[in-house]
Amino acid sequence: MIKFCTHCGAGVSFEIPAGDALPRHVCSRCGHVHYENPRLVVGCVATWEGRILLCRRAIEPRRGFWTVPAGFMENGETTAEAACRETYEEAGARIVVDAPLAMVSIAHINQVHLFYRGRLAAPAHAAGDESLEVALMQADDIPWGEIAFRSVTHCLEHYLKDAAQGSFGFHETALGPLSKAV
Amino acid sequence: MIKFCTHCGAGVSFEIPAGDALPRHVCSRCGHVHYENPRLVVGCVATWEGRILLCRRAIEPRRGFWTVPAGFMENGETTAEAACRETYEEAGARIVVDAPLAMVSIAHINQVHLFYRGRLAAPAHAAGDESLEVALMQADDIPWGEIAFRSVTHCLEHYLKDAAQGSFGFHETALGPLSKAV
Repeated sequence: MIKFCTHCGAGVSFEIPAGDALPRHVCSRCGHVHYENPRLVVGCVATWEGRILLCRRAIEPRRGFWTVPAGFMENGETTAEAACRETYEEAGARIVVDAPLAMVSIAHINQVHLFYRGRLAAPAHAAGDESLEVALMQADDIPWGEIAFRSVTHCLEHYLKDAAQGSFGFHETALGPLSKAV
Repeated sequence: MIKFCTHCGAGVSFEIPAGDALPRHVCSRCGHVHYENPRLVVGCVATWEGRILLCRRAIEPRRGFWTVPAGFMENGETTAEAACRETYEEAGARIVVDAPLAMVSIAHINQVHLFYRGRLAAPAHAAGDESLEVALMQADDIPWGEIAFRSVTHCLEHYLKDAAQGSFGFHETALGPLSKAV
């Protein structure tokens, strides 16, 4: 939540700037408009000899659940570089990305998740600071009931389906809020 | 440039937070970390009876040059919704998106450009506030020397190539800084 201007430190108001269509946090003193935009989370379904690299999360949200390596894209990098960096940071593995595999818009949390498919350059892997453990898993061993995020389930399902038919595509979808149990 | 904390209004320093790998703007009083991430620009190569919808820009950068409808994705929308909204705002056209067409990482300006292919639901179109004029152009009439951005050239070239061969793919690339004339 933006309460103060990043340029001059004065308080901001939430209003529609002239010529704009949406309310923004606008500085009451210098007029600076603070735009907020969705963030990209980039990851990779990376394999070694047919096994898939998965990490068990050491941090919230979803500590203890499994994911493919993925995280927020940083300024100054490409999407492919983000996928490689996250895989090295979380799983200690050097990879080569092959192609984009899946993209998931999650509008209610202002995120877009982008997953590549790729291959480990060498089988070495090790848990990074954000992982409890890292494993190269056969498809049959994937703990589907313990996957951290729905976008990860989405990309893993498409990866396995495409791999089985020997032809990879790019799979786009959108996810809404989970309905709450009554 | 972030000089003051959005949470408390105090000055920030540029330092690597504990447990992080990159320098961030960190509040000297409340410790709030201000993350900055790449922004998504989303657009569409939209057609009506084989002609492509193009806009001549009324705003900087690249005022007077041609583009497909595209702009910064907003919080609370999906990538497909962003493509439809931008096309309506800039070109007054209602579209249906078919599939993602191209993605271009431009690391030196912290942007990712994502283009869909889609179709106008009706031929109506009109210049929005950010366009000088809007046109449905035959491929042969595209003003290649007057295209506003390299990412737009990239997606138009792939669209035409794919359309000619009757099979559409998803095309990813990265663009670096333009070298300056000596």
